Amino acid sequence: MEIKEIKIQDLKPKEFIDQKIKEISSIVGDGLAINALSGGVDSSAVTMLGHKALGNRLKTYFIENGLMRQDEPQKIAALFDKLGVKVEIIDAQNEFFEALKGLTDPEEKREAITQTFYKKVFGRLVRASGAKYLLQGTILTDVDETVAGIKRQHNVFEQLGIDPQEAFGYKIIEPLVQIRKDGVRKVAEALGLPEAIYNRMPFPGPALAARIIGEVTPEKINIVRKATTIVEYELQNTKAFQYMAILHEDRVPGMRDGKRDFGLQIEIRCWDSVDARVAKPTRLPYELLDKLAKRMTTEVPGVVSVTYNIASKPPSTMEAV
Amino acid sequence: MEIKEIKIQDLKPKEFIDQKIKEISSIVGDGLAINALSGGVDSSAVTMLGHKALGNRLKTYFIENGLMRQDEPQKIAALFDKLGVKVEIIDAQNEFFEALKGLTDPEEKREAITQTFYKKVFGRLVRASGAKYLLQGTILTDVDETVAGIKRQHNVFEQLGIDPQEAFGYKIIEPLVQIRKDGVRKVAEALGLPEAIYNRMPFPGPALAARIIGEVTPEKINIVRKATTIVEYELQNTKAFQYMAILHEDRVPGMRDGKRDFGLQIEIRCWDSVDARVAKPTRLPYELLDKLAKRMTTEVPGVVSVTYNIASKPPSTMEAV
Repeated sequence: MEIKEIKIQDLKPKEFIDQKIKEISSIVGDGLAINALSGGVDSSAVTMLGHKALGNRLKTYFIENGLMRQDEPQKIAALFDKLGVKVEIIDAQNEFFEALKGLTDPEEKREAITQTFYKKVFGRLVRASGAKYLLQGTILTDVDETVAGIKRQHNVFEQLGIDPQEAFGYKIIEPLVQIRKDGVRKVAEALGLPEAIYNRMPFPGPALAARIIGEVTPEKINIVRKATTIVEYELQNTKAFQYMAILHEDRVPGMRDGKRDFGLQIEIRCWDSVDARVAKPTRLPYELLDKLAKRMTTEVPGVVSVTYNIASKPPSTMEAV
Repeated sequence: MEIKEIKIQDLKPKEFIDQKIKEISSIVGDGLAINALSGGVDSSAVTMLGHKALGNRLKTYFIENGLMRQDEPQKIAALFDKLGVKVEIIDAQNEFFEALKGLTDPEEKREAITQTFYKKVFGRLVRASGAKYLLQGTILTDVDETVAGIKRQHNVFEQLGIDPQEAFGYKIIEPLVQIRKDGVRKVAEALGLPEAIYNRMPFPGPALAARIIGEVTPEKINIVRKATTIVEYELQNTKAFQYMAILHEDRVPGMRDGKRDFGLQIEIRCWDSVDARVAKPTRLPYELLDKLAKRMTTEVPGVVSVTYNIASKPPSTMEAV
């Protein structure tokens, strides 16, 4: 079935919202729906649309996978609580770290997180809830990239570990599939979400696991989480499209107390982009780069070296894993 | 024995040269001396001093270890040929690559190169030559760093595989040991060496092997050699103290023809420094960083990502291996 794109210049957020609320209500009827909120703009917009359409017949979960930024689950749950939306946090950290143990290949890491999310944690929640309707924040760019072979195609039922027989009656609702990130931001704003959400920087599905080259461990997540807090604080006023800290696996020499000391390297990326399809490194002032490097090497344990990405996308990608 | 430093403000290059020529002549007498020329300012100055003192009783070798920059052995030999100094190039590439096979630890890599250089290749040349006098380009900073534990102490006879009994009569001559890099540059200029030599950027002993994180192979040397040619060309007018391209072992994703493609990352470092004891990243214009990144990703096979070092020394070191 072909998806009819609603271009940004044709998008009327209020009308779009009214129509999507009607659609969701009419599909779900007096049934139950479920969704997973990550705190990104897509899943936040879907949560609000579902909440407006279904009230407490929508059950929203935040899966704490241990790979999130500092205090992220609590911050997001508190934010939605203020908007009258109850979010339940599911602590699944051990399951995710268990699944990631020993994996170094980026695709295997992504796959382990996807499998743990869908088949184990969210799949279990869906089955336990009795809900037959799933709300998902798929946007048109996700569909494009699946077709282009950049992302892998997902059959959501299969991912949930629900077999076709058992799946009879299950339905996926994707209210954002006709729009792109810029459209979602307008819709999120019109839905009454705060600017911290509707202007929120893109953040990868595998979260901080996508910011670690090599094996993901709780210790390394802790290191890259500290580096992420610094980068997000220092670059918050740059108006860049996205910025990130990446923990490399390569060890590099440093000096501590006049002696050679092999340590860690953090790579910082900061992107200028309109829609993530092409991107250029932001030309940050050197004073700021210098401050970032100093904070990384003094505040993040083990870091002796800091680099700044200077390659564009393409041929680089925005994330490093 | 304490070494009496000649400070840069007290150094009179012509007098220093005359005195060192006399010293070398009086030590060697009518014997034979031997030295290894790398093309760096220290070994170049020593070669000229030795040549002026001993003429053709100094035998100068350039060890082609396969780890040099593009056309380096031929360029250096030709340059000295013009100055009337005959340099013999010894092709030992296979011995070095054989010794480096499978090694990933930076210290083990350095050790393998040192051992191959001294015990195997240069040791063999010393014994075959019958020379009992070795000229070495040790400078005062090398001595300081050995004492401070940054570099390892070297017993040159041991390194050459010459045992104390057999070694009776062997003598090491270190004409530059009272001065530092800035002094050597003045001496090299006064010796009539061209600016390309006396203002030559420092280059590490393990050559391009010090610019590869992880195992050193002929293929990787080829990649980092191309990257080095680009960096040295583009940054030649910056007046920076030192600049370099480093090939990382970490693989990062890139895009080629719209598809995901895991590729290589090159890190560029460019340093402002007076004497290498402390150093800061040069604040290169972004236009130049952009050009470097473009050339790396289009001209160096497999490179999809380029970074620029933004950390200072300390806690970083200048080299990355």
